[in-house]
Amino acid sequence: MIGEIIAIGNELTSGRILNSTSYFAASHLYAAGHEIAAMATIGDEPQMIGKALRESVERADFVVVTGGLGPTNDDMTNAAVADALNLPTILYPEIFDKIKQSQSFKEMPSLEKLAWLPSGAEILKPGDKIAGYLLVYHEKPIFFLPGVPHQMRELMLDRVIPRLASWGGNNITLVKQKVFKVFGLPESMLQEMLADLEKSNQKLRIGYYPNAAEVHLSLTVRGRTHEETETQFSQGEASIRKILGCCIYSDDGDTLEAIVGRSLKEQKKTLALAESCTGGLLAHHITLIAGSSDYFLGGIVAYANRVKEEILHVRTDTLENCGAVSQETAREMALGVKKITGADLALAITGIAGPDGGSPEKPVGTVCFAVASRGTTLSFRFHFNGNRNTVQTKAAMTGLDLLRRHLHGLDFIDSGW
Amino acid sequence: MIGEIIAIGNELTSGRILNSTSYFAASHLYAAGHEIAAMATIGDEPQMIGKALRESVERADFVVVTGGLGPTNDDMTNAAVADALNLPTILYPEIFDKIKQSQSFKEMPSLEKLAWLPSGAEILKPGDKIAGYLLVYHEKPIFFLPGVPHQMRELMLDRVIPRLASWGGNNITLVKQKVFKVFGLPESMLQEMLADLEKSNQKLRIGYYPNAAEVHLSLTVRGRTHEETETQFSQGEASIRKILGCCIYSDDGDTLEAIVGRSLKEQKKTLALAESCTGGLLAHHITLIAGSSDYFLGGIVAYANRVKEEILHVRTDTLENCGAVSQETAREMALGVKKITGADLALAITGIAGPDGGSPEKPVGTVCFAVASRGTTLSFRFHFNGNRNTVQTKAAMTGLDLLRRHLHGLDFIDSGW
Repeated sequence: MIGEIIAIGNELTSGRILNSTSYFAASHLYAAGHEIAAMATIGDEPQMIGKALRESVERADFVVVTGGLGPTNDDMTNAAVADALNLPTILYPEIFDKIKQSQSFKEMPSLEKLAWLPSGAEILKPGDKIAGYLLVYHEKPIFFLPGVPHQMRELMLDRVIPRLASWGGNNITLVKQKVFKVFGLPESMLQEMLADLEKSNQKLRIGYYPNAAEVHLSLTVRGRTHEETETQFSQGEASIRKILGCCIYSDDGDTLEAIVGRSLKEQKKTLALAESCTGGLLAHHITLIAGSSDYFLGGIVAYANRVKEEILHVRTDTLENCGAVSQETAREMALGVKKITGADLALAITGIAGPDGGSPEKPVGTVCFAVASRGTTLSFRFHFNGNRNTVQTKAAMTGLDLLRRHLHGLDFIDSGW
Repeated sequence: MIGEIIAIGNELTSGRILNSTSYFAASHLYAAGHEIAAMATIGDEPQMIGKALRESVERADFVVVTGGLGPTNDDMTNAAVADALNLPTILYPEIFDKIKQSQSFKEMPSLEKLAWLPSGAEILKPGDKIAGYLLVYHEKPIFFLPGVPHQMRELMLDRVIPRLASWGGNNITLVKQKVFKVFGLPESMLQEMLADLEKSNQKLRIGYYPNAAEVHLSLTVRGRTHEETETQFSQGEASIRKILGCCIYSDDGDTLEAIVGRSLKEQKKTLALAESCTGGLLAHHITLIAGSSDYFLGGIVAYANRVKEEILHVRTDTLENCGAVSQETAREMALGVKKITGADLALAITGIAGPDGGSPEKPVGTVCFAVASRGTTLSFRFHFNGNRNTVQTKAAMTGLDLLRRHLHGLDFIDSGW
């Protein structure tokens, strides 16, 4: 289906807030097989809202409207709808009853406004506090969602996408979708690896969403029956998993740091880090997870060579003969931090983030890693493209991925991108 | 003036890329005194682009169009313009000459397309590689800018805002604008502090843009003469500086880490860090700056108490009697990392980022800091609101601000928000 998205609010047209809700809606609708022809952002102006709505409904198969559903005076959506589509606003007693029971109603009688909706509106989450309704106008669905991002996302995923999938009466189409997080392969290489699969099976719709150092890959299948959809989808998923192997690290939204944290906890192992070029970024990611103090002992940000020598006990010989950026130095950093913290597992990163410090043998972007565990120490050398910040991000995330691969007993990659 | 913004590109309507250029344009146009009535995002579809353009030009005083100016087949803007506004596309020989001289022309003859523009187009940066032009249609300016964010930003600030400021022949209005970065005061408190000034001088237009742990404040003054504008602006700036004092840390786009880095370099001082709850985030900010190895020796992420004791030499007594989150522990951490690294200046952070670990005396969000320099060690206790990630960000940025205040000999704040 071809849709349009309308976002409402002066906070958007004045540039006070970045409109991330339209982006979220567009990416998920696209991944579910729809096409978005246009997105509009409009201030709190009933006439302009009404005009945009009329035009969108005329052009598109469906419309998603976000924002302007709140209780304050500048929340104009319902008034604009009533006016533009010629639908009177009526009181929904089941909503008003709930509002009257709430504590906030006494201080804010204007909340009553939330119970007045265009006639014919179907509440998307009845009994819930989240505003949001569906209007069917000339047989086309118009979804009205709150502008609050997390509420909008919830209704988008739980209500809008499923309703659109089965829109059209007898002509029911089922949609199954999953997002795979892939690490260590750039978007162009992924597209190449999956090109034959896409060509040979036109039923699979694959979307690529580069996201910092990784790519999120969506697989969407649409079918006429539950069985057809499921069969197509499992075949597609199996093919993708066969091609990408353990480069897929998650299909349920998990982050690398959450997966590493969970594995450390399950295996009852503690972790320590020694970072040079990433300057604490990897430790920061590890400690984003609540409860990381259960397995993370600490880290050394060894920026100066003296810190590498005096705190991590990297040998002067190694620094002089192999250089601060070398697999040998990485090994000694990992072993050093493992020893002084007593951790079960240690990871070290040393590299050249740039823009200066490169040489023909070790250009900017060269980063060495070592993983030290009981008994074995493995070291790696990667090269990453990009500016200083990109190299730091890729290096830190690669560190996390090396930990994941170590903890799960997977093969290591050893290249860069 | 009332304007509209049109962003073009399938990468936007498919949700593959977040539209940050319209946001940037809206915020700067708003701050310069204009109003944005509507923003549209449209796929690479000449008819839809043309229709949107015609409608916007009819409604608004000016239009900004971004994207679709490139050399590939899906760059449709010029064709859509020619069609919608009935302006033939003509070859601009000065642009084509430059293209012919370029290396890439041999491999990519389609670059010629960049030299074909709607008749009457005025190149915004003649002689530069950045595409972008101005068309005047029915006396209204339409700016066409590239979709590449940094190019679009450059033209927006250097060309669009100044041209709009002096639009309208005899009716010239001058605009002067500056953005102040403010640290340590939440948006609501800032608005309260500046409320009287805003009320007493209607000529000052102040915008508030919360940005992670800080607020960016824009001051805009519009006047009829150069003198009037300058006088009003300097009076406004002086009043703001008097009220906010050294909470303003930059008016030229500098970041806290760049300012701290520059001061360390100028004062020939070295820095070391000891972080607990921020888990390396502050070290990461310091090392975002190229050349930070000149002054940053390194840091200890002391997550486990044992690391605090064994590496930083925090006394067991202190940990037991005062707790890991205390000004005393922060002091000993700062002194410890200063001693083992030999740095001139050391900062320590220890706190409760949550969601667990709080107590009535030390609720989640409690963070203690210490700054140790030659001779003196100062410690602070703050309380920050927000979730784990917000507390970590506020704490790390407050650490940077404490370093700035120390290095510049400024008063310290000691509260939180």
